[in-house]
Amino acid sequence: MNLLVVGTVAFDAIETPFGKTDKIIGGAATYICLSSSFFTNKLNLVSVVGEDFPKDAIKMLQNKSVNTSGLQIKKGEKTFFWSGKYHNDMNSRDTLDTQLNVLENFNPVVPVDFNDSEFLMLGNLMPSIQKKVLDQMKKRPKLIVLDTMNYWMDHFMEDLKESLKEVDVLTINDEEARQLAQEHSLVKAAKIILSMGPKYLIIKKGEHGALLFNHQEIFFAPALPLEDVFDPTGAGDSFAGGFIGYLAKTNDTSFENMKRAVIHGSAMASFCVEKFGTQRLTEISQADIDARINDFTNLVKF
Amino acid sequence: MNLLVVGTVAFDAIETPFGKTDKIIGGAATYICLSSSFFTNKLNLVSVVGEDFPKDAIKMLQNKSVNTSGLQIKKGEKTFFWSGKYHNDMNSRDTLDTQLNVLENFNPVVPVDFNDSEFLMLGNLMPSIQKKVLDQMKKRPKLIVLDTMNYWMDHFMEDLKESLKEVDVLTINDEEARQLAQEHSLVKAAKIILSMGPKYLIIKKGEHGALLFNHQEIFFAPALPLEDVFDPTGAGDSFAGGFIGYLAKTNDTSFENMKRAVIHGSAMASFCVEKFGTQRLTEISQADIDARINDFTNLVKF
Repeated sequence: MNLLVVGTVAFDAIETPFGKTDKIIGGAATYICLSSSFFTNKLNLVSVVGEDFPKDAIKMLQNKSVNTSGLQIKKGEKTFFWSGKYHNDMNSRDTLDTQLNVLENFNPVVPVDFNDSEFLMLGNLMPSIQKKVLDQMKKRPKLIVLDTMNYWMDHFMEDLKESLKEVDVLTINDEEARQLAQEHSLVKAAKIILSMGPKYLIIKKGEHGALLFNHQEIFFAPALPLEDVFDPTGAGDSFAGGFIGYLAKTNDTSFENMKRAVIHGSAMASFCVEKFGTQRLTEISQADIDARINDFTNLVKF
Repeated sequence: MNLLVVGTVAFDAIETPFGKTDKIIGGAATYICLSSSFFTNKLNLVSVVGEDFPKDAIKMLQNKSVNTSGLQIKKGEKTFFWSGKYHNDMNSRDTLDTQLNVLENFNPVVPVDFNDSEFLMLGNLMPSIQKKVLDQMKKRPKLIVLDTMNYWMDHFMEDLKESLKEVDVLTINDEEARQLAQEHSLVKAAKIILSMGPKYLIIKKGEHGALLFNHQEIFFAPALPLEDVFDPTGAGDSFAGGFIGYLAKTNDTSFENMKRAVIHGSAMASFCVEKFGTQRLTEISQADIDARINDFTNLVKF
C-alpha cells in the first residue's frame, strides 16, 4: 500500500556521553522514511529543505525507494537545524540550538500522485501544518498516524486537539501523555486521550518499552535491553516508521496486527540508537531485522 | 519443598497520595510469607518482634500455613517500626521515621526443623544477619535468593559482597544494580554483578517491569499497567515471595521455570499495590491469581 510520510528533513548536531557529531542528516521524516523503507517501496515524502541540503542525501532517500517529488527545495534558504546534548542517563536532553529556517513558512503541498495514499504518517510538526496535509487528501486514508511532542502541547494545544479528532493512531511519550490528559496514571491518561479522537494510542517509554491502547485492550512491547545506547535521536521516528511501514506492507489494521507492528517499530528503534544519527538504519539488512524480531519474541516468551 | 523465609516482621505507617495509615502490619518477611503461601504450605519463618506485636497477626500468618516457631518474641521490647511518605509519582519516597527496636540486636536462630530447607529466601536485612542464617543451614539449600537495598550498599558493602558469593539469585532494583556495579547500563551492570557470585540476577524496575539475567540470557517481565497504585510498600517483597514460592512449589530451578516464577512474582506484586499494606494479599484467591497470570500472558502476546 502507498505510504505518505510528512515531517521534517533536517540537519542535526548531537552530543551524547559517547561523542559528538557535526551537522548530520536528521529530521523526523528522514528517520520515518528510512525505517519504513524496509517494509514498503511505495513511499512518498512531503517535506521542505533549503538549498544547502546535500543532493547526496536526497539521492540516498531515493535509493531507498522514497519518492521525493513532494520534497520542496527552497532556493536561497537554509534547512531546519537542531542541536542537542543528551544527559548521562540518555533519558533527557537539552536543546542547544534550533534554527527553523525553511520551516518558518512551510506550506506543505501534497502532489496529486500522493493524495490518495492509503497510509498517512504525520511526523512531529506544528499541528496546523499537519492539518493542512489532512485537508489535501482526496479521500480519507485507511490509517492516519500522528506523532507530536510537548512543545506543541505547550503552545498550540487547541490546534493539536483539532487534528486529534481526525487521526486513527496517536504516538507520544509517557510525559506527553500525562500532559495531554492532565493525569498521572498512564492507564487513565490513555482513556482520556482516546476520548479526544484517536482510536489507538501508543505511549513510548524509551528504554522501558511501549504501550498500545485501544478502548478495550492494552498491549505492551518491551524495549530491547542494550549494552549501550549511543544516540537516542530519531528512535521515536524509527519506531513510527517501522510501525506504519509494517501496517502498510501487511495492509491489515486490526489490533492483533498492530501488536506485531509495535514490535517491528520497537525493533527499528533498537537499531537506530546503536549508532549516531541515521547511520545504523542505512547499514542493516532484512536478515538483521528478522533476527531482532526473534530477540524480541524470546525476550518475553515464558 | 520447604521454604525458609528470613526477614523483618514490623509495623509500618504509610502515607501515599491516596491516603494514610496508622501503624499497620508490615515487614519484608510478612509480605514474602503471605505471597508465597499461595504456592507452598511448607513455609518456615525466622524473624523477631517485640511484645507489642499483636497475637492476631501471628495467628493470621499461621492460618496461611506459616510455621512461626522461628519467630522470636522479645519480652519488654518493641517491634521494628518504619514510617514513610510516597511522592506523587509513587516512584520515590521519604522515610519519616525508623525505630529499629528489636532489630538492633537481632540474632537469628534457625530452628533445627528448618535448617535443611530446600529453598531459602533472605529478605532485606543487614548483610551480616543474612550471613548468620546461611551459616546455620545444615546443608546448602537447593536455591538461595537474597534481597537487599541501597542502605546496606552505602554502609555495609563489604559484608554484602561476602554474602553475594554464596547466593544463587539476587533481587535488587535498577538504581541499586547501578550502585552495586558502579555502571549505568543495566545490561553491563548485570554482567558485573553476576561476576560477584549470583548465578541469576533480577532487576526490579517497579512500574517498568523486571529483568531476569543469567550469564547467557535476558528475560523481561512487564508490570501490569494499573489505573492506580495505592501503596507500593511491599511490592518487591510480594514479588520475591511469588517468585520463590512458585519455584518451591514446582521444585524446578531451570532458567525456563524461573521465567514463569518471575511472572508469578510480578502478578503478586500487582495485587500488593492495589490496597494499603498487606490487605490485598489477604483477600485474593487462587482464581484471582490464575486470572492475573492470564492478563500477563495476553499483555505481551503478539
